[in-house]
Amino acid sequence: MLICDKDRVKNKIETFSKFGDTGQGGVTRFSLSKEDLQARSEFVRRMEAIGVKTVADDMANVYATLPGTEKGLPAIVMASHTDSVRNGGNYDGILGVITAMEVVETIATKKIPHRHPITAMIWTNEEGSLYPPAMMSSGVVCGKFAKENIIASKSPEGKTFGDALKQSGYVGGEVNRLNPKEYTAMLELHIEQGPVLESEGMEIGVVEGVVGMVNYRIRTYGQTDHAGTTPMSFRRDALLAAASAIKYLHTELDKLDPNLVYTTGNILCHPNIHTCIPDAVDFSLDARHKDPAVIKQVVDIIKNMPKEFDKCEVNYEEAWARKTVKFNEELVALVQRSADAYGYTSKKMYSGAGHDAQYVADIMPTTMLFVPSKDGHSHCEPEHTSLDACCKGINVMLRTVLEIDKK
Amino acid sequence: MLICDKDRVKNKIETFSKFGDTGQGGVTRFSLSKEDLQARSEFVRRMEAIGVKTVADDMANVYATLPGTEKGLPAIVMASHTDSVRNGGNYDGILGVITAMEVVETIATKKIPHRHPITAMIWTNEEGSLYPPAMMSSGVVCGKFAKENIIASKSPEGKTFGDALKQSGYVGGEVNRLNPKEYTAMLELHIEQGPVLESEGMEIGVVEGVVGMVNYRIRTYGQTDHAGTTPMSFRRDALLAAASAIKYLHTELDKLDPNLVYTTGNILCHPNIHTCIPDAVDFSLDARHKDPAVIKQVVDIIKNMPKEFDKCEVNYEEAWARKTVKFNEELVALVQRSADAYGYTSKKMYSGAGHDAQYVADIMPTTMLFVPSKDGHSHCEPEHTSLDACCKGINVMLRTVLEIDKK
Repeated sequence: MLICDKDRVKNKIETFSKFGDTGQGGVTRFSLSKEDLQARSEFVRRMEAIGVKTVADDMANVYATLPGTEKGLPAIVMASHTDSVRNGGNYDGILGVITAMEVVETIATKKIPHRHPITAMIWTNEEGSLYPPAMMSSGVVCGKFAKENIIASKSPEGKTFGDALKQSGYVGGEVNRLNPKEYTAMLELHIEQGPVLESEGMEIGVVEGVVGMVNYRIRTYGQTDHAGTTPMSFRRDALLAAASAIKYLHTELDKLDPNLVYTTGNILCHPNIHTCIPDAVDFSLDARHKDPAVIKQVVDIIKNMPKEFDKCEVNYEEAWARKTVKFNEELVALVQRSADAYGYTSKKMYSGAGHDAQYVADIMPTTMLFVPSKDGHSHCEPEHTSLDACCKGINVMLRTVLEIDKK
Repeated sequence: MLICDKDRVKNKIETFSKFGDTGQGGVTRFSLSKEDLQARSEFVRRMEAIGVKTVADDMANVYATLPGTEKGLPAIVMASHTDSVRNGGNYDGILGVITAMEVVETIATKKIPHRHPITAMIWTNEEGSLYPPAMMSSGVVCGKFAKENIIASKSPEGKTFGDALKQSGYVGGEVNRLNPKEYTAMLELHIEQGPVLESEGMEIGVVEGVVGMVNYRIRTYGQTDHAGTTPMSFRRDALLAAASAIKYLHTELDKLDPNLVYTTGNILCHPNIHTCIPDAVDFSLDARHKDPAVIKQVVDIIKNMPKEFDKCEVNYEEAWARKTVKFNEELVALVQRSADAYGYTSKKMYSGAGHDAQYVADIMPTTMLFVPSKDGHSHCEPEHTSLDACCKGINVMLRTVLEIDKK
């Protein structure tokens, strides 16, 4: 069985971990920052060292393509991102880019015959840490976002993404964008970012799609008054009402399908002073499930929630929603067969997190594979996947690409 | 019956409402700000216009003393503050200063014979809005705070209170501080800042003391993880735990004495991102009651709270506490008799809010009287007390001062 070069993978992980190293085991590597440009240079340097040329498109997405033996065939592309959240880890995104590079290097250095061009690719600004939204460039390339809105996106310091693009030195032609005529399939390896594979002792996550989600804001309205002078019977305390609403929602949502995940992660309290009764609280409710019927049950619970808790009016507003994305069934089956071929344990699963692949799935056959996350942690410095676990994922990717190449 | 001059009181309320006018019905008048210095100038101008001289002490507290007919007697002092919270109202503090001025003016202009000197006084920085803590100058004068710590207090912009003092032009000698040898009693009129007097149809609050209070921070600790990738059974959600703790505390505390007031007014959630499970929440619990036994019951409930909610550790810390302050019984009885003498309805009550008078009570006979607050609102622009209601309070103050003078 063909496998990747473990020492070379180790060297890549260690090298890329230096770009934006926080000194605490992780990285801060915002898209198109100095640190991200260092990572991109390293990608270009390594690809050119094996004779693979790189081009960029107008969103600074970078494509390194190893030509195939048959003229006119579309390319097989593997892609992920080099950017991170603040104090992020050494695996989210970058492991997908390392995988793409390693597959190209393995095929190139071992001179493995292949008919199609094989492309390793970097998506610009997947995290949206500095310039929102997340999955910005795949969104533009796949027609989800208007480019003029995206280049106007501003960092907290007021710099536009358009200016960051210009200064990056990575702007190429729109003609270079990923497209379904020149590319036949897109594959993304990613860390799971959750605890399921590890806890079940599984080595490979065969990703069938990305779950649909809804995001609501729930708001409670009371009356602010002095904490020392207002008898309890006169009070309308919006934080007490929010606590009641949070407890109510958790109790009701816990009755739904056990694969539903939901989170009340953000809360704003006004005036938020210890000597004042709160008059307004606003909290988030994020809910995700692959089955739209379960998402509908969530929305029904929100809509049928009592209109009042603790004498405070309660209302809700949908902030945003996205539908479930299903990946290409043939590609999913191919990933499964590749995992089986190596004898790796695997689990079919949906991604709870968003990835560039979910937008690409709309324009060409796409799928993903996951490797386990230690303790399920991600978007933080303890994020970890062992070298062995990484290599297993890369091997599955390598075989999957070569199987696609045979078709 | 001797009464104040209603038109003159109206003119005072309107005039002082201009200093720091927000244009929305209230004032922002931080202590020693330009607006506060305007209010102080108006106080000095009005007192000097009736021949009353003013002096200041080293904390910029201002004293305007109308001499009495007998040499060597200590003064009777009426005091409150001219500063406000941000977007505060036209009555909190300033009505007590207006009352003091109006009593002095009534006695001076009507040439009412009196043995003791009678002093109208301004306390510096009662609110602590810009330079914490609240009741700063009465705290220094009454030995609660070390002056060197207080003058080092910084505004959010980094200016020290010591610098604000120097620039104010109101710094006099420490020898001028309020003291029990030169002053025989201190009285403070204030708005109730709560709804009790209005809702019970009472005109005067005969204040017996200031309730004791405790302030705790309650903290819950979970684990932050990705909202989309972490199954519910793996979660330790600190905000869910905080909601449970808030509900638990409200349920248990509601079983205690009905005069207990308690507030969970401030909440901080980390990382407070809608796509992350919260790992740490920290909220306040402020509880007030005149009976230390009830406060002890509150503390017992906090200490006996479950150590864990929703798989999250919960702990607590006392932020600060103050004991119940009882005002001078003779003075309380005198205020009561004065209210009765005018035929005003009245209610004996404890103050739930802190006031400079609570510190002064430690060094000399002290008491307070309240007038009603419309809808119980205070520390906000809708704060209101009708002119008639204000004048009733001033009349009670006037008679109380003259009764003390007879002793």
